[in-house]
Amino acid sequence: MAEFDLIARIRQRVAQRDDVVLGIGDDAALLRVPAGRELVVAMDTLNAGVHFPNETSPADIGWKALAVNLSDLAAMAAEPAWCTLSLSLPQADADWLDAFLDGFLGLAALHGVALVGGDTTRGPLSVCVTVHGFVAPGQARRRDAARVGDTVWVSGTLGDAAGGLAQWREGQAADLYLRERLDRPMPRLALRPALRHAHACIDVSDGLLADLGHVCAASGVGVQLDIDALPASVALRANFDADARRRLQATGGDDYELCFTAPASAREAIEREAAIAGVAATAIGRVVAGEGVQALGADGSPWVAERKGYDHFGV
Amino acid sequence: MAEFDLIARIRQRVAQRDDVVLGIGDDAALLRVPAGRELVVAMDTLNAGVHFPNETSPADIGWKALAVNLSDLAAMAAEPAWCTLSLSLPQADADWLDAFLDGFLGLAALHGVALVGGDTTRGPLSVCVTVHGFVAPGQARRRDAARVGDTVWVSGTLGDAAGGLAQWREGQAADLYLRERLDRPMPRLALRPALRHAHACIDVSDGLLADLGHVCAASGVGVQLDIDALPASVALRANFDADARRRLQATGGDDYELCFTAPASAREAIEREAAIAGVAATAIGRVVAGEGVQALGADGSPWVAERKGYDHFGV
Repeated sequence: MAEFDLIARIRQRVAQRDDVVLGIGDDAALLRVPAGRELVVAMDTLNAGVHFPNETSPADIGWKALAVNLSDLAAMAAEPAWCTLSLSLPQADADWLDAFLDGFLGLAALHGVALVGGDTTRGPLSVCVTVHGFVAPGQARRRDAARVGDTVWVSGTLGDAAGGLAQWREGQAADLYLRERLDRPMPRLALRPALRHAHACIDVSDGLLADLGHVCAASGVGVQLDIDALPASVALRANFDADARRRLQATGGDDYELCFTAPASAREAIEREAAIAGVAATAIGRVVAGEGVQALGADGSPWVAERKGYDHFGV
Repeated sequence: MAEFDLIARIRQRVAQRDDVVLGIGDDAALLRVPAGRELVVAMDTLNAGVHFPNETSPADIGWKALAVNLSDLAAMAAEPAWCTLSLSLPQADADWLDAFLDGFLGLAALHGVALVGGDTTRGPLSVCVTVHGFVAPGQARRRDAARVGDTVWVSGTLGDAAGGLAQWREGQAADLYLRERLDRPMPRLALRPALRHAHACIDVSDGLLADLGHVCAASGVGVQLDIDALPASVALRANFDADARRRLQATGGDDYELCFTAPASAREAIEREAAIAGVAATAIGRVVAGEGVQALGADGSPWVAERKGYDHFGV
C-alpha cells in the first residue's frame, strides 16, 4: 500500500459529525466549536516498547492510544468531539491498519468522536493522538482547584494495569482481567455528571501518588491518603499479596481512573451520579493544609513508596 | 533531567495569548475560539532519518516541525493561534531541548503562536505537532475549489529543498542556501491576503505534481503546467543542470510553497498582495477540463516525470 491508500483506507471508515465542516483529505480540518463553549485540547503519544509491550495486538494499541487521550478530556469534565491521529509505521500493512482501526474507531464510536485528520509516516511504530472537546466556561475540572477539607475520590479500581504489566514482565501467565485493564483502559467520560460536584480532577496515568502530587502542587495543599481504602479489583487481590497490591495501587500507572476532590457535602450526590454511570467511586482521603501526599495505614502509620510513579526519563 | 523537569523547562519559555485560558500543566489546555470563526486543525509528524537527516541540528528540527504544520494552516488561508507538541526523545538532554526550543519557539513567536500542551516521552526521536487556527466560515482555501479557467500560481521558488537534500545524499558540499531551504522552510502565512483572491490552495510538501494532482482529483479538473515557467532560485540554477532542475522543481518535496488557483481576473490583485507580502508569486499553468496534471515544455511537448512526488511507503 502507498501512503495515500493508507489514508483512503482510514477515511472511508470514519464517523461523521455535523460540526465537522471538512474532515480527512485536505491540508487541515475545519471544525465548528459550539457558541459559548471553551475548546479543550489534549495530546499524548504511545511508543512501541515504551507505552505498550511490543507484542500488543494492533486493535489494543488503537484502543489505548485514543483511550489515554480521552481520559485527559474526562479529567477536565469535557465533552469529547474530535481527534486527529499521526501514525508512524515501519511498513504499510493493510491487515495491521484494519485491526488498529477496529480498536481506535471502536472506542471513538462509543463516545461519538470523529477522526478528522492527521498523517501517516514511515518510522518506528508510534501513535500520536490529539483530542478536542468542549466545556462551559469555568466548568473544567483543573488540578489547581482542590480545597482544604475536600474529600479525595477515585473511580474504579487501582493497580490493575500495573499488575497486568508486572505479570507480563515476569513472564507469568497473565490474568486476563488485569491484562485487559492494561490494554483496554476505559476513559471515565461517564463520570462527567459526578464531576459537576467536584473541585479538582486528574486522571491516574503515572501512578496515584505522582498524579495526586500534581494536584497538591497546583492547588497549594496536601493530601492524607488512606492507603487501605484504595479500591482493589477481585483479580488484583487474587494475584498479589497485600504488600505488592498496595504498591501497585499507589504507584502503578496506566489505570486511567479519575482522582478528584469534592466538598464533604457532595458525598451523596457523587455516589448517586457514579452509580448511575455504573462506575465505582471511593473516598480515599482528604485535602489538608500543607503540601504533598502522605499515605497512612489503617492504624495511622505512614506508608512509604519506593517511587511515586512512572517517569519516562527516571533512573 | 526527569520528565517533569523537561516539561517545566518548556513551560517557562512559552508565549502567552489572551485566548489561552489554561496552557501547559494540566490534563488538557482550555482555549477560546473567536465567535463566528471556524477552527482549523492540522497535525504532522517528523521522524529522524525519514523527514530530516539524522545530523540535522536540534534548532532546525524544532523550526521545521512547526513550519510544516503552519504551512498547512497557510494553505487553508487560516490565521494561526495555538500548537501542541509531542516530543519523543531517546534521552532527556537539556542542551538538546533548549536548542530545539530555540527553533520551535522562535518560529512560533514570529507568528504569534502559543504552545499550549502536549507531552514528552521516551522513544526514537520523533516530533509530532498539532496546530490550531481560525478562518471565517467559507473562507478556507480548500483543495476542491479549483475551477476550469483558473490560473495556477506558486509562491517562492521550487526544488530548493530537494536540491539541498540531493547534495546531502550524494555527499557533496552543501549549497548553504539550498540546505537552509531544506532545514528552515518558511510557512507562507504572509500570503493570506493574496489568497483572498484564490479558489483552491495546497502546500507543496510532497512535490508539485503530486500535490497539484490532489487538487485536480478533489476539484474534478485537470491542470496544464508550463514546466519551464516553474520558478527557480539562483542557487538551484547554479548547482543543477536544466534537466535535474526541472525534475527537482516538479517532483521534489519539502519546499512548503503554496500552490493555488485563481480566476484570471485576479492576476493584478494577487501580484500586488504578493509584492506587499515580500513573497514571489508566479503563474505556472491553467486549470482545464479533464483530470490530472499535464506538464508541457515551452514548445508544447509533454514533460514526463519518473515519479510525481514523495510517498512514505512507495517502492
